[in-house]
Amino acid sequence: MVGGSVPVFDEVILSTALMNQVISFHDMSGTLVCQAGCVLEDLSRHVEERGFVMPLDLGAKGSCHIGGNVATNAGGLRFLRYGSLHGTVLGLEAVLADGTVLNCLSTLRKDNTGYDLKQLFIGSEGTLGVITAVSILCPPKPRAVSVAFLGCPGFSEVLQTFSTCKGLLGEILSAYEFMDAECMWLVTRHLRLTSPVQESPFYVLIETSGSRAGHDAEKLNDFLEQVLSSGLVTDGTVATDHMKVKALWALRERISEALSRDGYVYKYDLSLPTERLYDLVTDLRARLGPRAKHVVGYGHLGDGNLHLNVTSEAFSPSVLGALEPYVYEWTAEQQGSVSAEHGLGFKKRGVLGYSKPPEALHLMQQLKALLDPKGILNPYKTLPAQA
Amino acid sequence: MVGGSVPVFDEVILSTALMNQVISFHDMSGTLVCQAGCVLEDLSRHVEERGFVMPLDLGAKGSCHIGGNVATNAGGLRFLRYGSLHGTVLGLEAVLADGTVLNCLSTLRKDNTGYDLKQLFIGSEGTLGVITAVSILCPPKPRAVSVAFLGCPGFSEVLQTFSTCKGLLGEILSAYEFMDAECMWLVTRHLRLTSPVQESPFYVLIETSGSRAGHDAEKLNDFLEQVLSSGLVTDGTVATDHMKVKALWALRERISEALSRDGYVYKYDLSLPTERLYDLVTDLRARLGPRAKHVVGYGHLGDGNLHLNVTSEAFSPSVLGALEPYVYEWTAEQQGSVSAEHGLGFKKRGVLGYSKPPEALHLMQQLKALLDPKGILNPYKTLPAQA
Repeated sequence: MVGGSVPVFDEVILSTALMNQVISFHDMSGTLVCQAGCVLEDLSRHVEERGFVMPLDLGAKGSCHIGGNVATNAGGLRFLRYGSLHGTVLGLEAVLADGTVLNCLSTLRKDNTGYDLKQLFIGSEGTLGVITAVSILCPPKPRAVSVAFLGCPGFSEVLQTFSTCKGLLGEILSAYEFMDAECMWLVTRHLRLTSPVQESPFYVLIETSGSRAGHDAEKLNDFLEQVLSSGLVTDGTVATDHMKVKALWALRERISEALSRDGYVYKYDLSLPTERLYDLVTDLRARLGPRAKHVVGYGHLGDGNLHLNVTSEAFSPSVLGALEPYVYEWTAEQQGSVSAEHGLGFKKRGVLGYSKPPEALHLMQQLKALLDPKGILNPYKTLPAQA
Repeated sequence: MVGGSVPVFDEVILSTALMNQVISFHDMSGTLVCQAGCVLEDLSRHVEERGFVMPLDLGAKGSCHIGGNVATNAGGLRFLRYGSLHGTVLGLEAVLADGTVLNCLSTLRKDNTGYDLKQLFIGSEGTLGVITAVSILCPPKPRAVSVAFLGCPGFSEVLQTFSTCKGLLGEILSAYEFMDAECMWLVTRHLRLTSPVQESPFYVLIETSGSRAGHDAEKLNDFLEQVLSSGLVTDGTVATDHMKVKALWALRERISEALSRDGYVYKYDLSLPTERLYDLVTDLRARLGPRAKHVVGYGHLGDGNLHLNVTSEAFSPSVLGALEPYVYEWTAEQQGSVSAEHGLGFKKRGVLGYSKPPEALHLMQQLKALLDPKGILNPYKTLPAQA
């Protein structure tokens, strides 16, 4: 997302595309061991045939490699249910800057022998070592998946719907995504998708995944009755059929594609306190005025993760100047993260300081110097250039 | 468990007992921020009053500190459901060897700005820094908890019952513990507890936690019908009442106490491939013969974690010689871990090499030298003494 894998200056790209073998899959525990170049969607297919799912799912699943997913600590659509890769990755193999092969490819759920070295490589964007193989814990494949697509009259109702849904759906809640009216305008206009519900200021997509369709349907119905009767939700539709589920997900997943057809896109991926999350969008609309074509907010509300996107006809230094550092300062004031799941790469390495104190940056630089003293691994990425 | 907090030689103990304040709790996200000296049970009470639970639970909850839990990457009874602290700890504050306060006390679920430094301190047993505060994600409190206590005719039936239960209980399964007949003998004999089921070679404790009692009961009943009718389970009892649930858990949780009344105890905490997990117990019974009073196996089967304990009248070098390095070699042959959740501390730091390759040990030593160049933090713990 931030070009971590795009070569700049004198960088050389190392492709793991031919390292695409599944090494093993264990049917009882759901442990997958595979090479780093496996495509996420291929792995999904492999484990789904055996009754499991990958603990992560992304829009880019058809092309992204599992090694890159782990190196960038990818978040995505299943994060709310299955959590971070720091918890689901059981082991990995990495090649260090001096050529040492570090074999931490354990398949154990629990192992407290010394420091958990694999954690160093998860999310370090290839700057500390090259991940060559991964072992990952796959949860059982849910027998029933339902998606509800709802219209909400305001952002406060989006939040209250989330609280209600956590209470009534409990352990079967697997995604809580939101998008605003401008996102819907973009996907209907540019991609010719059709909204399944009445026009609303906000839309919510809720996914449930469970082991028993009847129980899940009962929970979902009770939830819908409550949010509709209380006015938190003004209109809604539910799908359990695979194709209809896919069509509802497309409204949310293809926003990014619709944005790219709208003009030049300024992209921000922020973690913010859930209650304040949308204030930044409203705030920016006022700040940018007619300079922006669209200022839109959508994302993984359940994880406190806002995707804030702004479009203008063409790249405009004045729009950029109005956005930065304003967006970063706003986020820092809320103790948020200026990169929730996309990482820093080359373009955003300079903004790390908005979310991390100098002591943390110093320790990161020490770790980089320890593991890559010659600076040969993704040299211009992640950490700010040193003075 | 392995004396990581017991001073040896010239060590000085640093107590965090007075750092026992809850700093904040966020009702919508379930994020708890607290000082390191908070007692786990106090924190449990604090968040349960607000509709949440701590993501970890241990027998020692009445006395252990959250800082120590995080420093030792404690596992415990809820690991199967909520996963590792590497996933549920959102942030921490640590004091480094040179006195620097490293503030990584974020409460964000997602933050990909630079390296995830907090991971370094989780499970490093205080050897890289002193954890002074923690932020942790608490899951919603389940509205219904049930416990089934079952008798199984053999270890293969224990495994098949586990597979069946993962399929039929799905997302409400929160613990799958097992104990052998000798464990039951010890708790009934030394602690005067009563077995709630017929005498069996193996016993299984299954806990479900869900948001809707009726649905959970239906799932549990269907599961019990299937395992009883197929002969995987020969007898069983179910409790939903809080006191009865506690009484069933006591049979499993108090094994360690019963062992200590039986004589001198040799303790091992191993991660092994689930299918082979009990072979080591059978093997050791034959190997030790009458030299051992009891050789027992119990533990968190759902996590592949065996607690292997051996008792003899008094400490015997001959028993120890028969156990070590045999147990470690056996575990290493299975690519297991010689310390699943208890850590290494002082006594077991020499066995790290059975579960980690030399390259990993070398990198651990480099990290230790980077973060604690003078070796003042828990100096004789975790890593093997250097030649």
